[in-house]
Amino acid sequence: MKIALDAMGGDFAPQAAVDGAVLAAAKLAGKAQIVLIGQEEAVRPLLQQHGAAAASLELVHATQIIEMGEHPAKAYQQKQDSSIAVGYRMLHAGEVEAFCSAGNTGAMLVGAMFSVKPVSGVLRPAIANFTPKLAGGYGILLDVGANAECKPEMLEQFGELGSLYAQYVLGIARPKVGLMSLGEEEGKGTTVTQAAHQLLKVNPHIHFIGNIEGRDLFNDKADVVICDGYTGNVLLKMAESIYEILDAKQMHDPFFDKFNYEAIGGSPILGINDNAIIGHGVSTPLAICNMLLQGYQMAESGIADQIKSTFKS
Amino acid sequence: MKIALDAMGGDFAPQAAVDGAVLAAAKLAGKAQIVLIGQEEAVRPLLQQHGAAAASLELVHATQIIEMGEHPAKAYQQKQDSSIAVGYRMLHAGEVEAFCSAGNTGAMLVGAMFSVKPVSGVLRPAIANFTPKLAGGYGILLDVGANAECKPEMLEQFGELGSLYAQYVLGIARPKVGLMSLGEEEGKGTTVTQAAHQLLKVNPHIHFIGNIEGRDLFNDKADVVICDGYTGNVLLKMAESIYEILDAKQMHDPFFDKFNYEAIGGSPILGINDNAIIGHGVSTPLAICNMLLQGYQMAESGIADQIKSTFKS
Repeated sequence: MKIALDAMGGDFAPQAAVDGAVLAAAKLAGKAQIVLIGQEEAVRPLLQQHGAAAASLELVHATQIIEMGEHPAKAYQQKQDSSIAVGYRMLHAGEVEAFCSAGNTGAMLVGAMFSVKPVSGVLRPAIANFTPKLAGGYGILLDVGANAECKPEMLEQFGELGSLYAQYVLGIARPKVGLMSLGEEEGKGTTVTQAAHQLLKVNPHIHFIGNIEGRDLFNDKADVVICDGYTGNVLLKMAESIYEILDAKQMHDPFFDKFNYEAIGGSPILGINDNAIIGHGVSTPLAICNMLLQGYQMAESGIADQIKSTFKS
Repeated sequence: MKIALDAMGGDFAPQAAVDGAVLAAAKLAGKAQIVLIGQEEAVRPLLQQHGAAAASLELVHATQIIEMGEHPAKAYQQKQDSSIAVGYRMLHAGEVEAFCSAGNTGAMLVGAMFSVKPVSGVLRPAIANFTPKLAGGYGILLDVGANAECKPEMLEQFGELGSLYAQYVLGIARPKVGLMSLGEEEGKGTTVTQAAHQLLKVNPHIHFIGNIEGRDLFNDKADVVICDGYTGNVLLKMAESIYEILDAKQMHDPFFDKFNYEAIGGSPILGINDNAIIGHGVSTPLAICNMLLQGYQMAESGIADQIKSTFKS
């Protein structure tokens, strides 16, 4: 099995990308091979510095880079030999089983939509993130930014997508799905969440437990929390800032340390035909390594096929 | 000056209400008098237990109670001698200059809308809350639940209402107003926030600094943060849960301790003709006391008149 990494993506690329890939290669030895995609002249010397530890890594040359500030769709179209475009081409061709990048988020979404494409039947793919649970482990929160506005049918599908991820990747037997709202009562929420509630409660593929509130993100009420991408993005960034403040104050604790984005390393795009993960722009080697391990877990679990067969029926 | 308190509102009423009122009376001695509104037979004995400390408190008898689970509009209409209805009548008649309650939030909103009424020109009043700032002091976040869905014009007005509160009650000279979004760029956000952005940036009454993100809630980018009531409510409840988790882990710190709802005690309803504050259902005596002090500060600042004169023009 091969897991690809955009060696040019992220504020500290290619150094952090190469270092993270070497860390991941050690952990995945015998199970998967890491493929770095990027400018050979920049990446090769960094690999050589790692000596034997980097021997198992493959390097695929890509001449162009999509910068962080570039217009995603335009850059993706114009830079067909960028590391992101090459990565998606390899993913679509089945040459690698997951593609990870800490580069331009918008370009990663564009590639997901136009290269590997949404699964037939999925209205709109979503970006998922992970919320640490007080009782241990993680829950899943989606969407966190792919779709600022959502129709009720999209929120319903996010419940299915999140539930499949929780089941097949996180190993949660019968994931509880909750809809983020301002009150537990069925009638609480916006017109969109109220309509989504009605769809979710009769959906046979999921175990819907009803509305949850902002206070329930870290408790055991729900394993999968559904919201629109605007709300999810605001929540995610607020949680990240809480971790940064705690860290600056040297207030450490095993639960709150899991708020650190490095612990998970990336956010999968769910509802597309292959496994793609978007990393944080400031990704460190540890974050890159964990993103690659997540890519391996997704590929190993067959989550993309599970999603395809669910939405086909 | 008189500040009224619903003695029957909150999970621990009337005990917590009376105890909190006695605390506040000591702090407001010579400046304002506390008026308790509730069932005399339940409240009088509790006041007597406080002896001389409760001597300055006034008690106004109200025979009925709106319970926490009751339908707000129906209960408000049917229970005209409830502590909430009597409180709003006294507020509207000018017999008291602020009314505070930790009781049924919906009934408090109904009373605000139908008794003291929105200020002429205000589309929809909002509930405000306070976010601690790393550099000290508080910022203001609105709406946190009065309006799950908002039109761009409502968000624009929330910017004006929050700005006036920050200026006249919090004492911030030229409050910076930020619009919650998923990115700083003008084009990021939902169709509603994008349209609100265009209105806010040409509004002459406020100092609009543009979009902010979830990570900016606690830094100095904005003193006033605008969002719809669904998003604000989810954020507020998540922040409260963070405090509860830190508290349970005995991780205390002056900044994070300000996440404790007790430190502020209540959420003002902004955009109505008088000063009304809604407290948390679980309000302790400390929370009740701080809600009353906030009521005094609002009355003292003349914030309601400032809002009226701004929206008249």
